[in-house]
Amino acid sequence: MNAFNEYREMMNDRLLSAENNKIIKRIFNLDTNTYLEGALDVRTKEMLGLVASMVLRCDDCIKYHLQKCHELGVSTEEMMEIFGVANLVGGTIVIPHTRRALEFWEELKSA
Amino acid sequence: MNAFNEYREMMNDRLLSAENNKIIKRIFNLDTNTYLEGALDVRTKEMLGLVASMVLRCDDCIKYHLQKCHELGVSTEEMMEIFGVANLVGGTIVIPHTRRALEFWEELKSA
Amino acid sequence: MNAFNEYREMMNDRLLSAENNKIIKRIFNLDTNTYLEGALDVRTKEMLGLVASMVLRCDDCIKYHLQKCHELGVSTEEMMEIFGVANLVGGTIVIPHTRRALEFWEELKSA
Amino acid sequence: MNAFNEYREMMNDRLLSAENNKIIKRIFNLDTNTYLEGALDVRTKEMLGLVASMVLRCDDCIKYHLQKCHELGVSTEEMMEIFGVANLVGGTIVIPHTRRALEFWEELKSA
Amino acid sequence: MNAFNEYREMMNDRLLSAENNKIIKRIFNLDTNTYLEGALDVRTKEMLGLVASMVLRCDDCIKYHLQKCHELGVSTEEMMEIFGVANLVGGTIVIPHTRRALEFWEELKSA
Amino acid sequence: MNAFNEYREMMNDRLLSAENNKIIKRIFNLDTNTYLEGALDVRTKEMLGLVASMVLRCDDCIKYHLQKCHELGVSTEEMMEIFGVANLVGGTIVIPHTRRALEFWEELKSA
Repeated sequence: MNAFNEYREMMNDRLLSAENNKIIKRIFNLDTNTYLEGALDVRTKEMLGLVASMVLRCDDCIKYHLQKCHELGVSTEEMMEIFGVANLVGGTIVIPHTRRALEFWEELKSA
Repeated sequence: MNAFNEYREMMNDRLLSAENNKIIKRIFNLDTNTYLEGALDVRTKEMLGLVASMVLRCDDCIKYHLQKCHELGVSTEEMMEIFGVANLVGGTIVIPHTRRALEFWEELKSA
Repeated sequence: MNAFNEYREMMNDRLLSAENNKIIKRIFNLDTNTYLEGALDVRTKEMLGLVASMVLRCDDCIKYHLQKCHELGVSTEEMMEIFGVANLVGGTIVIPHTRRALEFWEELKSA
Repeated sequence: MNAFNEYREMMNDRLLSAENNKIIKRIFNLDTNTYLEGALDVRTKEMLGLVASMVLRCDDCIKYHLQKCHELGVSTEEMMEIFGVANLVGGTIVIPHTRRALEFWEELKSA
Repeated sequence: MNAFNEYREMMNDRLLSAENNKIIKRIFNLDTNTYLEGALDVRTKEMLGLVASMVLRCDDCIKYHLQKCHELGVSTEEMMEIFGVANLVGGTIVIPHTRRALEFWEELKSA
Repeated sequence: MNAFNEYREMMNDRLLSAENNKIIKRIFNLDTNTYLEGALDVRTKEMLGLVASMVLRCDDCIKYHLQKCHELGVSTEEMMEIFGVANLVGGTIVIPHTRRALEFWEELKSA
């Protein structure tokens, strides 16, 4: 968990300080804005971001949204239903990502 | 909208009455169960199903979940934020599906 | 079915007679060779091509392999199990393609 | 070609005038900015956008970038090599999109 | 190979004993049923599962089906033709997965 | 970087010396031919290969094309714009691959 966050932050910093990075910077900025409180609350938006990341099978994105969901008080019962939607819609190729997601989630819960 | 629903129902009926269709039948059954009220309410689950369908770019799945979201009282303001998450996470290849989704959504609202 | 085959052949001809099309031509040629009798028989290979096309959700590719499977004597019972694997591995986003596949398959059977 | 452009513009207008569309608007704006002249010229960027759209198999995105490439003087010889890269990297599931792309391209050339 | 199987089993156990896991459990159960002897034999089904996993580029799924194929007596000659179909249909982005698949396959053969 | 190249070469050699590998061999051969100088120069083609690899999220393919781009004198300013197109078209799921791409790119520049 720490290794993941440290690498993520280090490389985000390098992307945000790289030369000629206007587009990347604006995508990062948009990313922040998309998950802000709005007509939908932050919690719902993070669950949306998580299920999208799961069906697209992006482990790093999954970890990021799992952390956010944990901070926002999503319960394990709720999480299991998000896993259910992702595995139903995305198929059994989502299972390996669900294994890693559960491991990370339990790490978050016990931290 | 009607053409979509009629074709969908007709072919679902044919799949459910085809010979040797045990697995397909169980997937259909599971599909129904996944979106039932649980730790998450039906409305949130349908929004999860919609965003998953959008990033995976499945127009028919999008239409189905748009109808469900409409029945469950999702507002246009909320819908636009779901579109936002889908287009951010899935990229501009989701835009053509968002155009068709908005058209279908407005059809639902004015029906 | 006829419209599909005619458009497919017309545009394949245009691709194969276009200028500077060496790579495309070789991909077409490789495509033919990949499905020839080998350690695996043609029937198995066409089933492999079909399931790959289904999970990648390419309707035109699905129709092509359905025709080949039909010519090679794949039964409806066998076809339903291929549909089963595709929907399990690829998830419910494969269902709309399965609806169209069944319609095309039944058209082939009754032709 | 006209039908495609008219529908595209009509629905883009509706998306840009919809309520609560901040994120979508910014994505559209970013889309414009990404393809502006920079360290890479516009022509190269449109070719990059095209190949990305082809391997992700988005027909509407392909048509859009084909128009831009045509306006910017990309030759048929060059286009065939872009098709080659897309079909090599993305596999034969890109072929049906290449058939439609060639048809649209020839329509552009003869317009 | 052992590390892969141990992690896979450990996390599957945790998923199957997690609270509120009805949907996940049923997907696991369906997964088992889909690959049982039917109109198609188990061997063909495992080859279908493998090619689907390869074009969807899921290394863990690939490893699982490679083990099954090995147990069921699929020969290296046959395996190479499955690799051929997967790389043709899915494109050169499947090559890195094919490299890892061959390594795992040779490990299985020499075990 | 060295570990990546060594593993890649070792497994490519094994694929190219495996029994019954005609199709794989021809795909490798086609891969070489697709990126040769033609109507488009090698540099443009490698940029096309890179952006295709990024939106399809294949880290190994990305690394390979980054090396080629580096050898062909693509500047960091240009690279950042390729990253921009990939992240715009492919969405924020491309960001984790962009982090790893930037790290590899900086390694190449400082080597």
